[in-house]
Amino acid sequence: MPAPMANVSERRFDPPSLAISTVVFALSAGAGNSADDESTADGATLWLPLVRRIREPYRNTWALPGGPIAWNESLEAAARRNLHETTDMTPNYLEQLYAFGGTDRSPDLRVVSIVYWALVRPVEADKAVTGDNVRWFRTGNLPELAFDHRDIVDYAVWRLRNKMEYSRIAQNFLGDTFTLAQLREVYESVIGRRLDPANFRRQMLASNTLIETDQVLAGARHRPPRLYRYKPELAQGSTAS
Amino acid sequence: MPAPMANVSERRFDPPSLAISTVVFALSAGAGNSADDESTADGATLWLPLVRRIREPYRNTWALPGGPIAWNESLEAAARRNLHETTDMTPNYLEQLYAFGGTDRSPDLRVVSIVYWALVRPVEADKAVTGDNVRWFRTGNLPELAFDHRDIVDYAVWRLRNKMEYSRIAQNFLGDTFTLAQLREVYESVIGRRLDPANFRRQMLASNTLIETDQVLAGARHRPPRLYRYKPELAQGSTAS
Repeated sequence: MPAPMANVSERRFDPPSLAISTVVFALSAGAGNSADDESTADGATLWLPLVRRIREPYRNTWALPGGPIAWNESLEAAARRNLHETTDMTPNYLEQLYAFGGTDRSPDLRVVSIVYWALVRPVEADKAVTGDNVRWFRTGNLPELAFDHRDIVDYAVWRLRNKMEYSRIAQNFLGDTFTLAQLREVYESVIGRRLDPANFRRQMLASNTLIETDQVLAGARHRPPRLYRYKPELAQGSTAS
Repeated sequence: MPAPMANVSERRFDPPSLAISTVVFALSAGAGNSADDESTADGATLWLPLVRRIREPYRNTWALPGGPIAWNESLEAAARRNLHETTDMTPNYLEQLYAFGGTDRSPDLRVVSIVYWALVRPVEADKAVTGDNVRWFRTGNLPELAFDHRDIVDYAVWRLRNKMEYSRIAQNFLGDTFTLAQLREVYESVIGRRLDPANFRRQMLASNTLIETDQVLAGARHRPPRLYRYKPELAQGSTAS
């Protein structure tokens, strides 16, 4: 995406400066505050919070939460602080995703953005402060985004799909125990299509990655579903995998 | 690793600046120019080139090849240019690894390093210019490194081991076709221990990832070994995986 050329100035010749942005993924949560209430009718979906820019460039356009890095904070600390300041969230799972440094990312000063990503459970997502300038959007129905943030979101979704295949990253959306239907909803949300429940159940049980607990889902009246957990020896989805 | 405090000055309060470093992995190549000639006696090993610093801080200490990012070059272009200027190499496989931004990385100005990694074939590694200030070292026998570069190398080796398990990243060391013994040498070098040839052969053939070609290794006189290639539909080891 070529940047508009109107604001190009001699600042263009400065060495790149640094910023942090974060892609926060949640399942269905925040829908009550979202701009897109009808979207959850067909099951769980993948959501992320965006912040409306109050300054040029891209004033009034939605963007990923983020900001500058202070001289005395680590990259992850900067990601946490910026996310907390804009959305009030403090996610458990926060990891570096990628550094975006194309020369045409911004029409004015060149900025290299080190992007983190967070996966949050509904209880965390519900803590996010929303309003006119912070809202949750469905990844399948995003508004126009500032800078190259749409490319960043697309990349993050792609990475999430890849990670889902070989790690227990789904746990970060679910908590320690979950039903097979809840696990299937995570997969469906990330992959973006429905899965056959019987096939999914068979594949998951055959994958040798889950332990059946002696607990069932609380609150279900008739034949409450069994709760499972991941085998502890499986590594948490990490930057390496 | 806490940084020495002697050079701390008010520059410490500047916002972080940016640099690029690259970890280049090769198998055995460059051993002839290395500081550690006897190390290949027990099979292929993993090597990387280091550059001796000619300026403070850490003057005369070995460091990863790298340098600054120009205002008009992408991160990858900066990695390629810096690597070419210091070692004369232009690797095919070059990917972003991670951004290192701890507040104590340097005793003076704070620098965030975006680290790339390259995997090179012996023919590429042999092109590297070596001398008093550029040398290949075995990953198992590194000298003291400047800044947090030892941590960076350790992280890169760990990532390489993880990637090896589920992608055809080994191909970047080998070329398109290879014998099972050559493939085993790549695994042995990265994992850091010998593998049973018969078990390795059985597992690789059962993995359903290789295609037997109708070619054999050139130059072998008696029962030349068969050449294999990866199935084309398998994704190249990428940042996503």
